[in-house]
Order: sequence, then structure tokens, then C-alpha cells
Amino acid sequence: MKARVHVMLKTGVLDPQGEAIRHALGALGFAGVEGVRQGKMIELDLTETDREAAEAAVKAMCDKLLANTVIERYEIELL
Amino acid sequence: MKARVHVMLKTGVLDPQGEAIRHALGALGFAGVEGVRQGKMIELDLTETDREAAEAAVKAMCDKLLANTVIERYEIELL
Repeated sequence: MKARVHVMLKTGVLDPQGEAIRHALGALGFAGVEGVRQGKMIELDLTETDREAAEAAVKAMCDKLLANTVIERYEIELL
Repeated sequence: MKARVHVMLKTGVLDPQGEAIRHALGALGFAGVEGVRQGKMIELDLTETDREAAEAAVKAMCDKLLANTVIERYEIELL
């Protein structure tokens, strides 16, 4: 089973990388970009075939390693 | 309009960051993880309200700045 995890900074947490992208887009002539946030996407190939067990495992991975839950939120998507 | 861009390394391109995550997950006791690929996710807030124009603009941004199309592929999602 494949899982996709999106890790984003929580709302309100400063995102200098996103801000840098916004500036660069403006400098390249792209008008109308009001805000940019950058996050991570992690794709996992799991041997687990049970949907619920897979989701629980990925949730544990996020809490332990993939996301810093103090400043980041995550979404899990099973494919 | 909001747009979400996923940027991933193309299949076949070595992903040392994903490999490092796979090793770390194994060391933490998570068995059954066969492969990990890490990519970027970029969320854009656009003033453009027309769907087709927004998609064309985001595509241009990806080709010019957000993705290195030699080694990366991207997906655009309009929310």
C-alpha cells in the first residue's frame, strides 16, 4: 500500500522559505501571488495491506519522525 | 484562488533524503517500509479567479522557478 504524507508549517508559524519563493516569483514578473507556503511531501511504500493498520502506522511515523508537531501539521493520504 | 503544487524527483533519480528517512524509520522499529521518496509541496494564494488562467500561470511558475524539470516532475492542484 502507498501512503502520501503532507507536512506543512502550522498557520501563524513564519515560513521564510515560502516568503523567498514569493519574492522570487515577483521578481520574475508573476503578479498576483499573495502568499506562498512551502511544505514537505513524503511518499511511503508499505508492505502492510490493511488500510486501518497502515494509517495507524503512518500516523505513528509522523508523530515520531516525519513531522515536528510543535510547529507542523500533517495530512495522511492512503493511495 | 488557491493552488497546490507537488514537486517530486522523477522515477530513477536517486533520492538520498528519502533513503535517509527509510533508514531512520527502520532504526525506530517501523518494519515494512519498502521505499520512501521525499518531495516538496508549495501552496500558492493567487488573486486570479479564472481557473484556466490560474492553471496556466502556475504551470509557468513551475517551469521557470518551482521545479527543476530535468530531474523533477510536478503536479498542479487547484483548490
